[in-house]
Amino acid sequence: MSLINTTVQPFSTTAFHNGKFVPVSDASLRGEWSVLVFMPAAFTFNCPTEVEDAADNYAEFQKLGAEVYIVTTDTHFSHKVWHETSPAVGKAKFPLVGDPTHQLTNAFGVHIPEEGLALRGTFIINPEGVIKTAEIHDNAIARDMKETLRKLKAAQFVAKNPGQVCPAKWNDGAKTLTPSLDLVGKI
Amino acid sequence: MSLINTTVQPFSTTAFHNGKFVPVSDASLRGEWSVLVFMPAAFTFNCPTEVEDAADNYAEFQKLGAEVYIVTTDTHFSHKVWHETSPAVGKAKFPLVGDPTHQLTNAFGVHIPEEGLALRGTFIINPEGVIKTAEIHDNAIARDMKETLRKLKAAQFVAKNPGQVCPAKWNDGAKTLTPSLDLVGKI
Amino acid sequence: MSLINTTVQPFSTTAFHNGKFVPVSDASLRGEWSVLVFMPAAFTFNCPTEVEDAADNYAEFQKLGAEVYIVTTDTHFSHKVWHETSPAVGKAKFPLVGDPTHQLTNAFGVHIPEEGLALRGTFIINPEGVIKTAEIHDNAIARDMKETLRKLKAAQFVAKNPGQVCPAKWNDGAKTLTPSLDLVGKI
Amino acid sequence: MSLINTTVQPFSTTAFHNGKFVPVSDASLRGEWSVLVFMPAAFTFNCPTEVEDAADNYAEFQKLGAEVYIVTTDTHFSHKVWHETSPAVGKAKFPLVGDPTHQLTNAFGVHIPEEGLALRGTFIINPEGVIKTAEIHDNAIARDMKETLRKLKAAQFVAKNPGQVCPAKWNDGAKTLTPSLDLVGKI
Amino acid sequence: MSLINTTVQPFSTTAFHNGKFVPVSDASLRGEWSVLVFMPAAFTFNCPTEVEDAADNYAEFQKLGAEVYIVTTDTHFSHKVWHETSPAVGKAKFPLVGDPTHQLTNAFGVHIPEEGLALRGTFIINPEGVIKTAEIHDNAIARDMKETLRKLKAAQFVAKNPGQVCPAKWNDGAKTLTPSLDLVGKI
Amino acid sequence: MSLINTTVQPFSTTAFHNGKFVPVSDASLRGEWSVLVFMPAAFTFNCPTEVEDAADNYAEFQKLGAEVYIVTTDTHFSHKVWHETSPAVGKAKFPLVGDPTHQLTNAFGVHIPEEGLALRGTFIINPEGVIKTAEIHDNAIARDMKETLRKLKAAQFVAKNPGQVCPAKWNDGAKTLTPSLDLVGKI
Amino acid sequence: MSLINTTVQPFSTTAFHNGKFVPVSDASLRGEWSVLVFMPAAFTFNCPTEVEDAADNYAEFQKLGAEVYIVTTDTHFSHKVWHETSPAVGKAKFPLVGDPTHQLTNAFGVHIPEEGLALRGTFIINPEGVIKTAEIHDNAIARDMKETLRKLKAAQFVAKNPGQVCPAKWNDGAKTLTPSLDLVGKI
Amino acid sequence: MSLINTTVQPFSTTAFHNGKFVPVSDASLRGEWSVLVFMPAAFTFNCPTEVEDAADNYAEFQKLGAEVYIVTTDTHFSHKVWHETSPAVGKAKFPLVGDPTHQLTNAFGVHIPEEGLALRGTFIINPEGVIKTAEIHDNAIARDMKETLRKLKAAQFVAKNPGQVCPAKWNDGAKTLTPSLDLVGKI
Amino acid sequence: MSLINTTVQPFSTTAFHNGKFVPVSDASLRGEWSVLVFMPAAFTFNCPTEVEDAADNYAEFQKLGAEVYIVTTDTHFSHKVWHETSPAVGKAKFPLVGDPTHQLTNAFGVHIPEEGLALRGTFIINPEGVIKTAEIHDNAIARDMKETLRKLKAAQFVAKNPGQVCPAKWNDGAKTLTPSLDLVGKI
Amino acid sequence: MSLINTTVQPFSTTAFHNGKFVPVSDASLRGEWSVLVFMPAAFTFNCPTEVEDAADNYAEFQKLGAEVYIVTTDTHFSHKVWHETSPAVGKAKFPLVGDPTHQLTNAFGVHIPEEGLALRGTFIINPEGVIKTAEIHDNAIARDMKETLRKLKAAQFVAKNPGQVCPAKWNDGAKTLTPSLDLVGKI
Repeated sequence: MSLINTTVQPFSTTAFHNGKFVPVSDASLRGEWSVLVFMPAAFTFNCPTEVEDAADNYAEFQKLGAEVYIVTTDTHFSHKVWHETSPAVGKAKFPLVGDPTHQLTNAFGVHIPEEGLALRGTFIINPEGVIKTAEIHDNAIARDMKETLRKLKAAQFVAKNPGQVCPAKWNDGAKTLTPSLDLVGKI
Repeated sequence: MSLINTTVQPFSTTAFHNGKFVPVSDASLRGEWSVLVFMPAAFTFNCPTEVEDAADNYAEFQKLGAEVYIVTTDTHFSHKVWHETSPAVGKAKFPLVGDPTHQLTNAFGVHIPEEGLALRGTFIINPEGVIKTAEIHDNAIARDMKETLRKLKAAQFVAKNPGQVCPAKWNDGAKTLTPSLDLVGKI
Repeated sequence: MSLINTTVQPFSTTAFHNGKFVPVSDASLRGEWSVLVFMPAAFTFNCPTEVEDAADNYAEFQKLGAEVYIVTTDTHFSHKVWHETSPAVGKAKFPLVGDPTHQLTNAFGVHIPEEGLALRGTFIINPEGVIKTAEIHDNAIARDMKETLRKLKAAQFVAKNPGQVCPAKWNDGAKTLTPSLDLVGKI
Repeated sequence: MSLINTTVQPFSTTAFHNGKFVPVSDASLRGEWSVLVFMPAAFTFNCPTEVEDAADNYAEFQKLGAEVYIVTTDTHFSHKVWHETSPAVGKAKFPLVGDPTHQLTNAFGVHIPEEGLALRGTFIINPEGVIKTAEIHDNAIARDMKETLRKLKAAQFVAKNPGQVCPAKWNDGAKTLTPSLDLVGKI
Repeated sequence: MSLINTTVQPFSTTAFHNGKFVPVSDASLRGEWSVLVFMPAAFTFNCPTEVEDAADNYAEFQKLGAEVYIVTTDTHFSHKVWHETSPAVGKAKFPLVGDPTHQLTNAFGVHIPEEGLALRGTFIINPEGVIKTAEIHDNAIARDMKETLRKLKAAQFVAKNPGQVCPAKWNDGAKTLTPSLDLVGKI
Repeated sequence: MSLINTTVQPFSTTAFHNGKFVPVSDASLRGEWSVLVFMPAAFTFNCPTEVEDAADNYAEFQKLGAEVYIVTTDTHFSHKVWHETSPAVGKAKFPLVGDPTHQLTNAFGVHIPEEGLALRGTFIINPEGVIKTAEIHDNAIARDMKETLRKLKAAQFVAKNPGQVCPAKWNDGAKTLTPSLDLVGKI
Repeated sequence: MSLINTTVQPFSTTAFHNGKFVPVSDASLRGEWSVLVFMPAAFTFNCPTEVEDAADNYAEFQKLGAEVYIVTTDTHFSHKVWHETSPAVGKAKFPLVGDPTHQLTNAFGVHIPEEGLALRGTFIINPEGVIKTAEIHDNAIARDMKETLRKLKAAQFVAKNPGQVCPAKWNDGAKTLTPSLDLVGKI
Repeated sequence: MSLINTTVQPFSTTAFHNGKFVPVSDASLRGEWSVLVFMPAAFTFNCPTEVEDAADNYAEFQKLGAEVYIVTTDTHFSHKVWHETSPAVGKAKFPLVGDPTHQLTNAFGVHIPEEGLALRGTFIINPEGVIKTAEIHDNAIARDMKETLRKLKAAQFVAKNPGQVCPAKWNDGAKTLTPSLDLVGKI
Repeated sequence: MSLINTTVQPFSTTAFHNGKFVPVSDASLRGEWSVLVFMPAAFTFNCPTEVEDAADNYAEFQKLGAEVYIVTTDTHFSHKVWHETSPAVGKAKFPLVGDPTHQLTNAFGVHIPEEGLALRGTFIINPEGVIKTAEIHDNAIARDMKETLRKLKAAQFVAKNPGQVCPAKWNDGAKTLTPSLDLVGKI
Repeated sequence: MSLINTTVQPFSTTAFHNGKFVPVSDASLRGEWSVLVFMPAAFTFNCPTEVEDAADNYAEFQKLGAEVYIVTTDTHFSHKVWHETSPAVGKAKFPLVGDPTHQLTNAFGVHIPEEGLALRGTFIINPEGVIKTAEIHDNAIARDMKETLRKLKAAQFVAKNPGQVCPAKWNDGAKTLTPSLDLVGKI
């Protein structure tokens, strides 16, 4: 069964965020839109480019009222050092979440048991803690944050406009559809 | 557990394709790259726009040696009529796969039991039948085939160039990374 | 065990009826006689002839205070298109019930798991929701609505005249039997 | 699950037939078409009228190469006396099958445990022992053998003409349908 | 374990008795002595001779305040016809109990599953519903009602005279024994 | 289920017989007719009268080629003393079987667990070790060996004359019945 | 686990004692010291010598306020006859307990299932019903009541003198030991 | 169930014997008679008196070809020190067996779980490893080796003279009994 | 799972301490620091040297408010004799705890089932009964009490100074560390 | 049960060692002595001091033919960065083993599930892969490598000199003990 339209399971861990160690839990995700971005491990190859891509788009996520969370199975200690030593990761102003207990990676179905690491998984979660989109890649294939932004906008649009749906490749400003009996079999 | 890097389960069903009813099975997916595009139901609202988006990009999928499969839980009879009556769906030159037994939607974890319909799920599968990317949306949020094309190219690149990985927002022509001890902690 | 004299199980789905999508449930069957007519799939071969046969006899069913329900495992979306595109089905003034979850076909024991479709099954249900007759065919063998009318009249007669039974090939106007000790071993 | 298209389970019992006690088993049903006609009990009210209806149509069943079997949970001893004492039953030239062990009534799902009697059930079985139609009534509602003859002819027609189906209210001499891609959505 | 000194299990069925159909249950057995006489089937060979033997001795059973019940797995319909057609059975003024559900024959351990019939079993039951004697034969060996009368008298004697026992071949009028310490090892 | 027509279970014990301790087992019962006569306990009240009744009829049992076995849950030691001290039991020329392990009383379903003693049970067993009649009494009600002789003769008659049955109260010399179709419903 | 220092399990049976049949239960053992003497069977070889040995020492047991109980799996009827016929057993003034249900022999772990008899077991039980000594022999090896008397005296001595223990081969009048820290490792 | 006439279970441990540490196992017990003497603990109060009693009678045990084994749950190290420091135990020329694993005390059912110590238990075992007598006391009540010698002689006598049994209080030289039919009920 | 930071399980046993037998239980460990020192067996080789080492350091343990407990699976009786006979053990002023039930050795995971003895295990337990350090050796390798003292001091230091940790080879007087965000990745 | 004298379970992971990523498995531990040193997490407080203590004593471990392995649940990527950024850890010439799957920390019983980190545990393992000593601390209490060296020497001594044991606080050059009967109870 898909995680789509299920509520995030309870979790509790520690992140490095803006020079501090802060607690992060399922309660932290309530009240605003969240984007969880799982990746394999600190200090590796693709991961810094993805953190940097998130950092480059962070202003727009903030404009949409959404927080970004980077998650790996490393400790928050490693995340502090990563932030200090990696030029790319150093740009991150959002929480770098440690998951050494594997609680989060298991809850989102992105744990690789034989490696103890996460797959590249992105999840958009609404302010009620309900998962609206999921995207998971083999670790050699990285993501594009622009597409995540597009999906977030569509998710926010249909949340605000019940009774409308966003058609293929919709982006903000484009037309939406209002399902009705008349349209059945006519599009 | 994620479906990423698992092999497609055995299945057997019937599709409407280029004016004929043809059998489709897991064996059909072997030997070339495949893109499975699940959607809720024929004759509805967003689905035709997504079929049309796929049709508009089909030439490029074919250039990459990949087949596109649209899947709903309708019968192949409904798919024939949909193809005949919908201007958008009528553009489709790829198979419209019927899944009235719910075998495929269950195997890819996109079945909604209380509706008997599929979630919007896209899966890129390599010629060995191994799933490399997954993307699943709440049904009100449609997809963008350009992003699926980008992921397919990245998946094909790393398949052809073992030892390299595609960084964030990579598209064909862009630089890739070759993981090495020296890069650890340096990016 | 037979379904005869058992109560219809709870169900809830959507039908296309007189140009609208309407909810249908076990509660809809209470208060009047119902005839459930399962068939394999919209847009196929025998099914429209059977829908037409029901339409041709519908006036008489209505005179008897009975509603007719056509059921397939298609969606109500498909049923709308079927009604619009098939000359035969277009005559139907009764609900075309969608059963994409297979709940109804399973509840009446007419599901074919390897096809995801229904067998040809007809069930007469009294206003208390109790099944009084059942008739199920291999899908290549169609039914005759005149015979269903005859059974419905017999079911209604014995419901109204407790203590009487309808003998073989009884039709309205013919004699009935009143079981009594004296008749035992004498007919 | 329906019994349609399943093979008759093994059974073995005794019938009264043409003045003799004869064994009847699932093997007896192989090689010709069979019609099993279950009814509640010897010496009762409706049952003799149904036996008589079968007797009146027996010549036509024989012309179609089909045997008729009346089944109750009485013994074959009771069936002999029934045949001798009932003017209606006395016309029967086909086997009156005793089922005091309830083996047959259970196998065809027509047993009423709290009464130890059968429901009115009619089953058409092909020469391979496969059940093609089923019809079960509340015991107050009798059957019409003319309709059973119509179904038998349809079953025999599609058995002899694979690729054709009998449309609604088909009777011998009427047109049949040959399913084809072209007809999908066109009838 | 033997049924001796256990209470009759609850049952409920219908008998033919003095030209009427009457209900018979475990409650019917309370308040007077009962003799249950199981036999295989109506219309057979030995059974009428045993019914007749019971009828010939019925006056004496009645003098002892005991009712006789003949039980077969036939219906009460068959029992009516049996009573009308058999000169021997026609003498019966006691209930002919139908047991088509096999409830009674199973409760008294005299059911033959592979035949659906009862063994020849006779049970004497006291007014509290407790079984005092049991006698079961292979069906080819009939009983003698005189011996059942002798047992009934002995059972009634020891019920009325607690502290006494009836010695071998005791019949009414003969001496009984009063167990006492002195008799131990002395008879 | 009744023990009638089942084979005696294996057992092995010791009897006092004609001044000796002899082994008795299920094998001892093969090859001739046997009558097992269970009773509660040596040295008690009714039991000696029943042993004496058996002794008085023993000549006739022997003429019929049948052995009589008295069984109690006492030891064979007690049986020897019983034979020596009881005038009635002293007449016994047949085995007095000890069953201190309760194996036999349990196998014949006549054990009273709360007393460790047997009920009064008589079983006629054919030379193949198959039980043909059973008779069990509350311990206050004794048996009559003349009736056991009558049953034994009937059992032997039908064993020697397959196809015939002994009617009610049959005794040697009386008429028997030969079941046939013609007799059904005529006696 | 040993029975030593466990409480006697509930039991209820009948004994022959001083010309009467008396009930004996676990309650009978409360309030005075008891000696239970199990042996195989009445009327046998060693057993009378052991009963006689108990009788010869009974005066001394009574002086010590202890009752002796002989137990076999025979009935109390057999015990009465044994007492009357055996010169040795006739000396017994203590209860001869019957255990035909095997309840006592099982509770004291001295039952031989394949014989239905008891082993030679002697148990000394205090007035609270707690077992203080146990002695069990193969049945060919008899006991000596003088040793049982010695143990009984020791058991009574330590019960009356808490803090003292009876050393090896202690008999009444001999020295006892008072355990103390000083004696540890010094004797 | 009693241990009488069961074979000693496999065990393996270490004893202090004649100034050496020697292995002792169930195999050690085969080929000669053995007497196992369990007692609670080294360095305590009664135990040395029992070891001394065994030592005082050891010459006679040896004459009878029997070995004596003292067993406690202490280690063989403690047994060496016990032998050196206790004047009484120092007389022991037989093995002092350590059972710190509790294997032996559990196998002979003399373990006290809440203390980790053994009860006072004596077992006579024949050269085939079969237990012939058992004697278990509350720990405050010591044993008398003279009685163990008497039992050993009786056990050896009946082993050498099959068909004879030793009567009550038998000692060497006294008369034995030969069971025979004639003696039944006569002693 | 490790025992570290778990609470000592309930236990209850007896020790030899300063010439007396005293009870020791988990309650005894509450309120002061405890050091449990398991060793294989009294009277052996390495164990006295370890007891002596503990005795030589006992003054310092007492200064730290900690009690030392020596534990073996021997009885407290053996411990008294050990204390009296061993010059090394005789120095012990702390409890020598007997564990013949193996309760303590099992609770601390140091039991060797095939020997019934303990491994060499040392456990430091805080006044709340929580285990803070564990050390277990193969029995051929002895411990050094100086190291146990060092660990005890560290455990006491961090208990008194929450927020500080003792670095490698810390001993009293040396510097400790206060964890803080600034130190992460800097030491 | 303790891990002492059990064999290391199979494992397979990656370490950072002398500037390279190298595989480490249970096979790596065979053939030389190994010291496994678990600690909570890279980049933390006490851990670097313990790594440095190990580095300072590494020459002596190498002289003894033993390898040292530092283990945390971090990745080998983190270990590389730790080695580069920590002055203390930078001294390490032995493998820094990553255990992100928690396989090793679980196998050695030092995993803290609620933190995903290891306890401070040190294990000495012989060349056959058998664990000879274990030492586990609460994470606030660090270890002293000098004591680990002492234990390693003792373990190597008794491995090379079977029959000898190392007494308390033994260090190389000191006397050892040879267990013998004479020493029992004498030290």
